[in-house]
Amino acid sequence: MLLAPIKWIKNKIVFIDQTELPARLKYVKCGDINTLCEAIKKLKIRGAPLIGVAVALGYALAAVNSKEKTFAGLRKDLNRAAEKLRATRPTAVNLFWALDRMERKFETSRLGLWPRSKNNIVRANRVSREQTIRQIKNNILKEALKILEEDKKMCVAIGKNGARLIKNGDVILTHCNAGILATAGQGTALSVFYEAKKQGKKFKVYVDETRPLMQGSRLTMWELMKNNIDAVLLCDDMAASAMKNKGITKVITGADRIARNGDSANKIGTYGIAILAKHHGVPFYIAAPRSTVDKNIKSGKGIPIEERKREEMIFTGSKQTAPLNAKVFNPAFDVTPASLITAIITDKGIYAPGQIRGI
Amino acid sequence: MLLAPIKWIKNKIVFIDQTELPARLKYVKCGDINTLCEAIKKLKIRGAPLIGVAVALGYALAAVNSKEKTFAGLRKDLNRAAEKLRATRPTAVNLFWALDRMERKFETSRLGLWPRSKNNIVRANRVSREQTIRQIKNNILKEALKILEEDKKMCVAIGKNGARLIKNGDVILTHCNAGILATAGQGTALSVFYEAKKQGKKFKVYVDETRPLMQGSRLTMWELMKNNIDAVLLCDDMAASAMKNKGITKVITGADRIARNGDSANKIGTYGIAILAKHHGVPFYIAAPRSTVDKNIKSGKGIPIEERKREEMIFTGSKQTAPLNAKVFNPAFDVTPASLITAIITDKGIYAPGQIRGI
Repeated sequence: MLLAPIKWIKNKIVFIDQTELPARLKYVKCGDINTLCEAIKKLKIRGAPLIGVAVALGYALAAVNSKEKTFAGLRKDLNRAAEKLRATRPTAVNLFWALDRMERKFETSRLGLWPRSKNNIVRANRVSREQTIRQIKNNILKEALKILEEDKKMCVAIGKNGARLIKNGDVILTHCNAGILATAGQGTALSVFYEAKKQGKKFKVYVDETRPLMQGSRLTMWELMKNNIDAVLLCDDMAASAMKNKGITKVITGADRIARNGDSANKIGTYGIAILAKHHGVPFYIAAPRSTVDKNIKSGKGIPIEERKREEMIFTGSKQTAPLNAKVFNPAFDVTPASLITAIITDKGIYAPGQIRGI
Repeated sequence: MLLAPIKWIKNKIVFIDQTELPARLKYVKCGDINTLCEAIKKLKIRGAPLIGVAVALGYALAAVNSKEKTFAGLRKDLNRAAEKLRATRPTAVNLFWALDRMERKFETSRLGLWPRSKNNIVRANRVSREQTIRQIKNNILKEALKILEEDKKMCVAIGKNGARLIKNGDVILTHCNAGILATAGQGTALSVFYEAKKQGKKFKVYVDETRPLMQGSRLTMWELMKNNIDAVLLCDDMAASAMKNKGITKVITGADRIARNGDSANKIGTYGIAILAKHHGVPFYIAAPRSTVDKNIKSGKGIPIEERKREEMIFTGSKQTAPLNAKVFNPAFDVTPASLITAIITDKGIYAPGQIRGI
């Protein structure tokens, strides 16, 4: 099974509403930016690489939907869309990386097509204004689909690089979902499992349920089981017990942003697991594409950490599991320092955290 | 607020159904052993000291309910009840401690009251058989109520001993519920907070929600807030982040069984927190009564760990949060080795884990 959590069909974005899993596999057709932004904020679409792809497609959607006939008008529409998309979630760098790239594409694709001054007027007259706008929009869409295709290849490359680390008999712990549902392809951390399985390796995976939104139990368990990977669910507070009593040999998780020094932000709980891994002498790996490395940020201290709404912790499903007026601490991510990371598995190879800046 | 999670009223056990909290404070009247056993298995009644009190009252209930007219008959009824009560949960030692004590009381209270041989026949004739049985039952009930009263005093003593450790400005992490709802009194770990508050000390408490059954978010948050303790809820996978970013100065939890060497079994997740505490240089304390120390067990390896049903992790409230056929690892407890425990706060004083055998 390799399903696509996001697709571009007839000028619409079609995505799996991941909040409905595992009970229901529901595709949603989305024709406007506001719906897309809501979907990202509510984690219907989530996972750093997938968010990158989604906002690129979102930018293309804004271009396709624009009724503006001038470059300046189109730019205004696109800027407005990009601003909304940028405001959805702060931590995953892939989101900003993808939008920066889309905006660069927009700016360069109009060069030579659109007159900047009266000197270019002759060229501008050669093609109609309407044709030019159409061509720019087309370039934008092509770039978004290119990001999607690159993401698929990146997933395979990460998987193949990581699979070299997997040995028969390995018992691997993972946290959150860094799989098919987090990318446009076969995942990052989970891609390692899929490639190792293809190579005939025998191993077992323990999956942290990952509170409060349970991407581990809802998404990772679902896709690993669909792909016949031997998977066992545990609550986050059982990870230490599993390391001591169930012979965990490795930890592999994804990442949402990696600083120049190798400090890595990932789903809340990752930092704690890295400490537990160190205590038990278990190697701890991050699997992520190059686009997750943020060279503008020196260390983990510079990574903004999203704090989410208290309701996520007061209710579980529709059941009230805490006093209604309880104060909460609800960070969506934490930072694992480079010192606790054995290596970072990327599409370009496996790096010591201290070397990631050279990627 | 100091409510009683268990009471003896008119030959019935009346208890709070803790699975209904925090949405509803519901008392259940229970007149038979089977209902009581179900309530303990389903964690309607939970917390090591409270389970001890509950089975003692359960033993008394079986005595009161017995229609047997002979000592041998009564013993058969009581043995059957004790067997059922012993089979409810394996880890908390207070359960076995309380039943052993009740059985000792039964055996000794009939001495001199009931003839063992024909030589005693004269004495036996002095009081009627019926009166004797009534007196034995009465002794049993008195013993159960004595255990309940002792538990209350024990809570206060633990609280007072522990409060000596609390400083103004402390930020304390706790896990699960070791409070009013876990005892017949004001708790063990949480009793420390209640006593420190009485002494006018200012501090803040972070509360792990404690998956899968959320005794932290449902019970500890509820009772701390009712008692005006400054409490903040966090998911279990946020504990490391809180230690790093929220200035946690201490961890205090309860225990379900403490081995001779100080290894302590407590709610699943405790072991992981102790590792995180060590990594961050935060002292880690256990608060528990003497009855939690099991002198028959040399080290944590000898403590039986209950594994619970998979449904607890497949559904959260009524919502399906994992594939229906997911394999799970669901231990209800883990063992924190003595080496990770700074000290054990008891009703008799504060002990280094290595000294607990001398209590």
